[in-house]
Amino acid sequence: MPDRVYLDWNATTPLRPEARAAMVAAFDLVGNPSSVHDEGRKARRVMEEARAVIARGLGTVARRVVFTSGGTEANTLALGPVLRAPAGPVERLLVSAIEHASVLAGGRFAPSAVQTIPVDRAGVVDLGRLAALLAAGPPALVSVMAANNETGVLQPVSQVAEIVRQAGGLLHVDAIQAFGKIPLDINEMGADLVTISAHKIGGPKGVGALLLGPGVEDIMPVLRGGGQERSRRAGTENLAGITGFGAAAGAAVAAMEADLPRVTALRDRLEAGLRQTSTVMVFASDAARLPNTTLFTACGLKAETAVIGFDLEGIAVSSGSACSSGKVQPSHVLEAMGVGSAAAQGAVRLSLGWSTTEADVDRCLQAWRKLSLTLLKGGDETVLERF
Amino acid sequence: MPDRVYLDWNATTPLRPEARAAMVAAFDLVGNPSSVHDEGRKARRVMEEARAVIARGLGTVARRVVFTSGGTEANTLALGPVLRAPAGPVERLLVSAIEHASVLAGGRFAPSAVQTIPVDRAGVVDLGRLAALLAAGPPALVSVMAANNETGVLQPVSQVAEIVRQAGGLLHVDAIQAFGKIPLDINEMGADLVTISAHKIGGPKGVGALLLGPGVEDIMPVLRGGGQERSRRAGTENLAGITGFGAAAGAAVAAMEADLPRVTALRDRLEAGLRQTSTVMVFASDAARLPNTTLFTACGLKAETAVIGFDLEGIAVSSGSACSSGKVQPSHVLEAMGVGSAAAQGAVRLSLGWSTTEADVDRCLQAWRKLSLTLLKGGDETVLERF
Repeated sequence: MPDRVYLDWNATTPLRPEARAAMVAAFDLVGNPSSVHDEGRKARRVMEEARAVIARGLGTVARRVVFTSGGTEANTLALGPVLRAPAGPVERLLVSAIEHASVLAGGRFAPSAVQTIPVDRAGVVDLGRLAALLAAGPPALVSVMAANNETGVLQPVSQVAEIVRQAGGLLHVDAIQAFGKIPLDINEMGADLVTISAHKIGGPKGVGALLLGPGVEDIMPVLRGGGQERSRRAGTENLAGITGFGAAAGAAVAAMEADLPRVTALRDRLEAGLRQTSTVMVFASDAARLPNTTLFTACGLKAETAVIGFDLEGIAVSSGSACSSGKVQPSHVLEAMGVGSAAAQGAVRLSLGWSTTEADVDRCLQAWRKLSLTLLKGGDETVLERF
Repeated sequence: MPDRVYLDWNATTPLRPEARAAMVAAFDLVGNPSSVHDEGRKARRVMEEARAVIARGLGTVARRVVFTSGGTEANTLALGPVLRAPAGPVERLLVSAIEHASVLAGGRFAPSAVQTIPVDRAGVVDLGRLAALLAAGPPALVSVMAANNETGVLQPVSQVAEIVRQAGGLLHVDAIQAFGKIPLDINEMGADLVTISAHKIGGPKGVGALLLGPGVEDIMPVLRGGGQERSRRAGTENLAGITGFGAAAGAAVAAMEADLPRVTALRDRLEAGLRQTSTVMVFASDAARLPNTTLFTACGLKAETAVIGFDLEGIAVSSGSACSSGKVQPSHVLEAMGVGSAAAQGAVRLSLGWSTTEADVDRCLQAWRKLSLTLLKGGDETVLERF
């Protein structure tokens, strides 16, 4: 039996061997990619190879990839008010209610210029409301994620894109959780801006990218000074991190066809096991979801206690988004889905990855059966509404 | 004889063995530092150890260190208009004329709120003009670097701090080139904000930090969303990079006492050798400088040709700042010093580091003697003013 079982892949993933090897090799590159000498050119070459791999992974070309320090920076860079939409300058930002905190923060839009698109009870963005919001004001930038980090629910991105296109707006897609897990193509999505992050796909923490769609040229840099990244993002590039990102992206995309059914089967096994506890409810289980994500609760469950209980049993799991954890606060995603506070406060996320095994799942279920005896005590009176 | 000689340490440094080892160890930490489980706590512990080492290296405490994706981001974070100076809210930014491009860009100040402090012919900030600028307007944030990246000239930071303090302003010090090369202490400098970067001291590219002085609490984040870095900088932390940064900072500070005289002696040997060519002129050679930096020219020298010539001889050197290289443009630093265009266009930077040897210096001089025969042809008519 393994020492620990890691089921918190949506928070961050283990480093893929390919990424580790690429980074260790990059440690020997002494040059600054902006320098003209041999050392500089070698560093630049490796960086550009990574850029090309990442671009291919999303069906685009290298020069449309802007490297950043991660998803938060890429989202901040994406959400800038100087963009020009087909119908005119973007004057406001529409974000779905279930976006990541870095998108909800609104980037560089004034708080008064940010509006929220509601989601339905399954956690899917409300297309009718989106169309109404777009019709009711000036050209907008719309931000809808490809898949939610807490529930795993896939969003109808192509349909969103069509609605945004007809309204003359622009679409940003935070694809951080979806990239590398399900097939994605920036053109098929119809996205103008796409955010991805290395550490969700087996790359290192602290690297991400913003991909620009065919119509987008002028983005206002967040970081200014040097001419790096075609003057879209100043600062010496994170060479080892970018190299690891490229290697991880290549490996993730190559393994996807095999991983997708395998991880789905493990997730189904996990959920079937959890459901042996009569009051267990898996959130958004009827919606199209990522293959790897299970958000569940049960009558009487308190998420914080459950996470600690799992941890003591050797299983790493999460309560809601890890990015804002440390603070106990109800999930804005479940709140947006209309989930009551009793159920929301008990939501535990189990997320799987390419190295998760059947033994890991079974050990998690074994821990759950043990924990549920104490964690669910006194929960019989609670009645959870079905989601 | 070594295969290549790297004399471009001010652009970026080789990775220190201590940093490499720390990063490889961090690759095995699967957790997100924000996660509450064991994997998350282990990641956080390693990150906080690095933070403490870096804080000590500048005479402060861990909670005053904000990790960023590098010097450019740290400078952008520092130069925010919401800061409150002793005399009132900061309404403008004064930057020395020789600052790095990321400081000259003005951070989040409107271009109209940014003023330039001139430097003298030795490349030292003009204290009288600074005082006059401060007296002539509302409370200001002043940004003066500890040492210039092109000339190596040290700035009178403590004197600047005293002038700024008396005027009720705030002081930001970009210490990227000075940290790890000469002793620095945030309190002795009298700085309110200090920027440092990992890849100039043997750490990885893509990590930096902003250190806050005793009076500074509220900085306006550039990246918002998650609560990382005490809500001063959102986004999952670059764990491996930060770990490498900490290890490099510890090693650099520990080795400083031995490195400083050794590198100074190598630099002096290098300059003595260069001066055997009669028209060679070392910029700011009479000013107090970093131990490792030589910026020189000679009659008839063209920097771009010289850099390529050195490269073909196996020596990596730079023409001016590498951060903006790729584009041929005259150095704003030399221009600010009043250097004429003939001399400025010939400026070549040789910068040394802890692993530079006497053999490296001698091989560089050998290459120079060979190159100067062709590079200086027809330069006899040029008369260079002495700097």
